[in-house]
Amino acid sequence: MTAKFRELFDAQPALIQAPMAGVQDAALAIAVDAAGAVGSLPAAMFSPEQLDTELRKLKAAMGNRFNVNFFAHSEPAPDADADARWREALAPYYAEFGIDVANIRPGPGRAPFSHAVADIVEPYRPALVSFHFGLPPDDLLARVKAWGSRILSSATTVEEARWLEAKGVDAVIAQGLEAGGHRGHFLSHDLTCQQGTFALLPQIVRAVKVPVIATGGIATAEGVAAAMALGASAVQAGTAFMLCNEAKTSALHRAALRQASARHTALTNLFTGRPARGIVNRLMRELGPMGAAAPAFPLATAALAPIRAAAEAKGSGDFSPLWSGQNIDGCRAVPAAEQVRELTRLL
Amino acid sequence: MTAKFRELFDAQPALIQAPMAGVQDAALAIAVDAAGAVGSLPAAMFSPEQLDTELRKLKAAMGNRFNVNFFAHSEPAPDADADARWREALAPYYAEFGIDVANIRPGPGRAPFSHAVADIVEPYRPALVSFHFGLPPDDLLARVKAWGSRILSSATTVEEARWLEAKGVDAVIAQGLEAGGHRGHFLSHDLTCQQGTFALLPQIVRAVKVPVIATGGIATAEGVAAAMALGASAVQAGTAFMLCNEAKTSALHRAALRQASARHTALTNLFTGRPARGIVNRLMRELGPMGAAAPAFPLATAALAPIRAAAEAKGSGDFSPLWSGQNIDGCRAVPAAEQVRELTRLL
Repeated sequence: MTAKFRELFDAQPALIQAPMAGVQDAALAIAVDAAGAVGSLPAAMFSPEQLDTELRKLKAAMGNRFNVNFFAHSEPAPDADADARWREALAPYYAEFGIDVANIRPGPGRAPFSHAVADIVEPYRPALVSFHFGLPPDDLLARVKAWGSRILSSATTVEEARWLEAKGVDAVIAQGLEAGGHRGHFLSHDLTCQQGTFALLPQIVRAVKVPVIATGGIATAEGVAAAMALGASAVQAGTAFMLCNEAKTSALHRAALRQASARHTALTNLFTGRPARGIVNRLMRELGPMGAAAPAFPLATAALAPIRAAAEAKGSGDFSPLWSGQNIDGCRAVPAAEQVRELTRLL
Repeated sequence: MTAKFRELFDAQPALIQAPMAGVQDAALAIAVDAAGAVGSLPAAMFSPEQLDTELRKLKAAMGNRFNVNFFAHSEPAPDADADARWREALAPYYAEFGIDVANIRPGPGRAPFSHAVADIVEPYRPALVSFHFGLPPDDLLARVKAWGSRILSSATTVEEARWLEAKGVDAVIAQGLEAGGHRGHFLSHDLTCQQGTFALLPQIVRAVKVPVIATGGIATAEGVAAAMALGASAVQAGTAFMLCNEAKTSALHRAALRQASARHTALTNLFTGRPARGIVNRLMRELGPMGAAAPAFPLATAALAPIRAAAEAKGSGDFSPLWSGQNIDGCRAVPAAEQVRELTRLL
């Protein structure tokens, strides 16, 4: 099945390093590319200037042989009531850390893909552009296709996979429930629709003709081989790269991933407003993990930012998003190239 | 890895038909055994007389080469308040179907394994005895081991697998979140601890020395091969056998499994009091799927029974437990022997 993926991207092996906003930049992608796999740049949290800088680094290292990932959500309208409810829920923590609520400024946002962002990306014509939370509007998608990028997007159900194929994607990423970070669902927000990789992957492989990239819980060479046995054309691994030397994973986050307690993750909407999988910590235990008070994505981040910063200053990850998939057994603090070799050992 | 399983049970192939209370009896196990795999009898819902009858059928067909499965929960104390709350939640349905609440009698219960049940089982000395929801008390477990049965039990976390190994089980069943029917968790009732098979299976394989049997979302030959690639010594498949000729799956349940909407399952406590995976239906949509009003396992069943019966009499599965795993692609209305051949095609 890997031949289907190689028609899109001549990677040997058919392994994609998952784009992970907040814990990596071009450095990880460059190291993965040097080892022969597909490096990805997560663009959702970069400013326009940062994005251009990172793209320039990628171009210098590997031409256009990379994947750049964008979020494709709709920006929510400002909602003062929702923001007030969220701040009220967080009030005990503001008090605990002595934070002056009047000083809270908008934190790092997550802007959806737009023509303004496309203006930055177009000169680089990345081989692959992947989206999370569906796809951008048709005209924007057509623009990306017109400059020659192949389009990938995440499906968390069979229905989403069929929808993406009908919209003309070149490959579907089947995101099993084990995956770390944000769930990519976009047709239904009912979390009971989300399936484990063992169920989701083969059902999507049967449902669509485009290549299917497996992700979620795949963290070892055996996992990669198993995903291929289930019909995947390629595998995308994220958590397995989080301890790599070239990742920008914080010391706090690295320490959390090294503990056995990291096996207890949960989907939580508290950090951004959308469900994402992270290691269970104090905020998740006390307000959730799914909390009714969290505002629409991505508006939860700003009000939480000063609490997170105050806790991190004391060496605590109690209020930090400690994204992780459910399978931490593959995490190794090694160069990314060594992780690529290990993950693809059985291919 | 299958050699590890064959030291316990000389099955060729290393495939176990999952015990499925309510949808099968000895007939399915006998057909599976005749095809060379391991047939299982689910004992949790049988009366003592039924259990003896079914065991006699198994003995006549295959000696002691079978698996018999018991629930190992603690029986809850009667709780009149909880029962009243549950009946109040169900009151609109009693009214809708014209049911006289005064006439409600205890429905089919689910008794835990006990010395009285062991008295029935002992003469048959089944090759395998499997437990769900942990293990019975030590003296009872010792009794089963003393008569020569090998012990299997379900683990839904790495911690549970280690606990079971320490208690002396001969093999651990790694039950991924995709699995249909009751979750087997017993150390923590926090559902966020539950993992997809892709994450759970390899982590348990690394954590214990006993053979690991994979279950959850495995419904095709490719799935069986993938589980073996992840280190399973054997695979247990349930949903894939539910449409087989020899299963006792009701016509309503069979019809539900044949629809694409069967892909939407959820964990629900409404039918028994414990979370179990079934196809989403009206009761689950209106009161749950996880409902605070449901009493402790297995006490939810009785008060719901007349509503279920009234709905089923009208041809509706709106109030029936339509147990199913997340992967329905392997369901085929064929003889069980043909399903065994298909599932093990790649071994």
